[in-house]
Amino acid sequence: MSTTEIHQGSNGSLPPSGTFRAWEYADGRFSEMDVNLSMEYSVTLSINGSPFIIIACSGSEMREMAVGHLLSEGIISEAEDIRAVTFDTDSLILNVETDLNDRILERMLRIRRLPSGCGQGIAGEDVPVRNVTGKTAIAVPTVLSMMREFLQHSTLHRLTHGVHSAALFTADGRRLSFFDEIGRHNAIDKVLGHALLNGIDLSDKIVASTGRVASEIILKLINASVPAIISRASPTSLSRELAIRHGVVMIGRVRASSCTVFNGIGTVTP
Amino acid sequence: MSTTEIHQGSNGSLPPSGTFRAWEYADGRFSEMDVNLSMEYSVTLSINGSPFIIIACSGSEMREMAVGHLLSEGIISEAEDIRAVTFDTDSLILNVETDLNDRILERMLRIRRLPSGCGQGIAGEDVPVRNVTGKTAIAVPTVLSMMREFLQHSTLHRLTHGVHSAALFTADGRRLSFFDEIGRHNAIDKVLGHALLNGIDLSDKIVASTGRVASEIILKLINASVPAIISRASPTSLSRELAIRHGVVMIGRVRASSCTVFNGIGTVTP
Repeated sequence: MSTTEIHQGSNGSLPPSGTFRAWEYADGRFSEMDVNLSMEYSVTLSINGSPFIIIACSGSEMREMAVGHLLSEGIISEAEDIRAVTFDTDSLILNVETDLNDRILERMLRIRRLPSGCGQGIAGEDVPVRNVTGKTAIAVPTVLSMMREFLQHSTLHRLTHGVHSAALFTADGRRLSFFDEIGRHNAIDKVLGHALLNGIDLSDKIVASTGRVASEIILKLINASVPAIISRASPTSLSRELAIRHGVVMIGRVRASSCTVFNGIGTVTP
Repeated sequence: MSTTEIHQGSNGSLPPSGTFRAWEYADGRFSEMDVNLSMEYSVTLSINGSPFIIIACSGSEMREMAVGHLLSEGIISEAEDIRAVTFDTDSLILNVETDLNDRILERMLRIRRLPSGCGQGIAGEDVPVRNVTGKTAIAVPTVLSMMREFLQHSTLHRLTHGVHSAALFTADGRRLSFFDEIGRHNAIDKVLGHALLNGIDLSDKIVASTGRVASEIILKLINASVPAIISRASPTSLSRELAIRHGVVMIGRVRASSCTVFNGIGTVTP
């Protein structure tokens, strides 16, 4: 029984980071090594035992997050509204006990699922996903030049507004589309929608993203049968796990002359 | 009647940016000027006329976004699944006509509301909000040093993982809390939850965020009666509008010696 009441000053935390096996490319060759990644947990926030929302989060300071979420969403307004906060680290259920049944019940009629990226989200096994069957052989020098071109394109747009970008590339480095959006999810959706509308087969293409790759991004790619993603940022633990499980090549931390392969080392050549 | 079928090649776009009045601080004084901001629209994606999800987005390439969202969420899998896409630029209803009634209906039982930041979200008037009544006199030199301290704190954490941060400051520049998270929303929630749990009155405090301020962030602050936010990034059009309507001081584009006041110029001193 791992349910414990979280007392003030006790964070009720899970490890916020962990080390994971990856292959780092530098000086023209790969080195196998352990890389530190942000953990991503799919935590169910419950009110008086009823599921309210699933939040993708880092696993730390669960008491503050639970109380702050209910305050910021207009459900509670005072510390006196909270009787207790418990966190079950096995089931990842974060429960808030409160007396405010009437005010709360109307807001609990459905579990709301909010995407992460912004940190709240669909995550884990509750979304139907396929296994990606496409195969793409990827050469690291092509990845590096892809990212260079992608970020130049993006920088131009960043000057005018704070946006995220996503693009679609062929495995030999030709860019097929580029979209800006106010959020990472929309940018990815546009890339996928554009491909579907234009008869572009996604099963041998590569998606590039300016954003961190969290679980809900990789689930989108899996649903659209995209076999590979490159990003300048690191993935979260959960998105790496989903990439491995569903066969998506995942390359992160792409710099001018280096990158890290988190999945698919067998199809990536130095 | 502004509903139009969006044909391929036609983007069905609303203006993705606009100019808005703001006060730029530089060389110790304010200049009133027009600043270019990303537009944020709260678009309802419907399937065969039934609301499916509300998406906070930039208003461009609506056809790609609609089709891509349904593909990436596993609802459609082929271009043939789409009969037509229409976008009503008055009501902001983006409708996808499809024959796949049975497969889709089970997924349409509720409108899902996803937050932006990542670009999908609660936005606009459907969240109960209060007017912020607190008053905070803010001196720009204090804002600049606040942001400097905040970003130094944050940089340290960015080295280990790709995170967003949020912090709480007194109006005279004392930092009361600091939180990292995998998303902007969680970081803000933790700041607010920590304050509630520790008896910190939010009505004269300032929240700092590393992230872009979109509508759902400002709505969180309004619900928690926070009177001011500072950020290195620009707000979206909708978050600026909500800040004005509910009396939240909004300072963005905070640099080493300059910043831009988007709302509350009367309470900000050079």
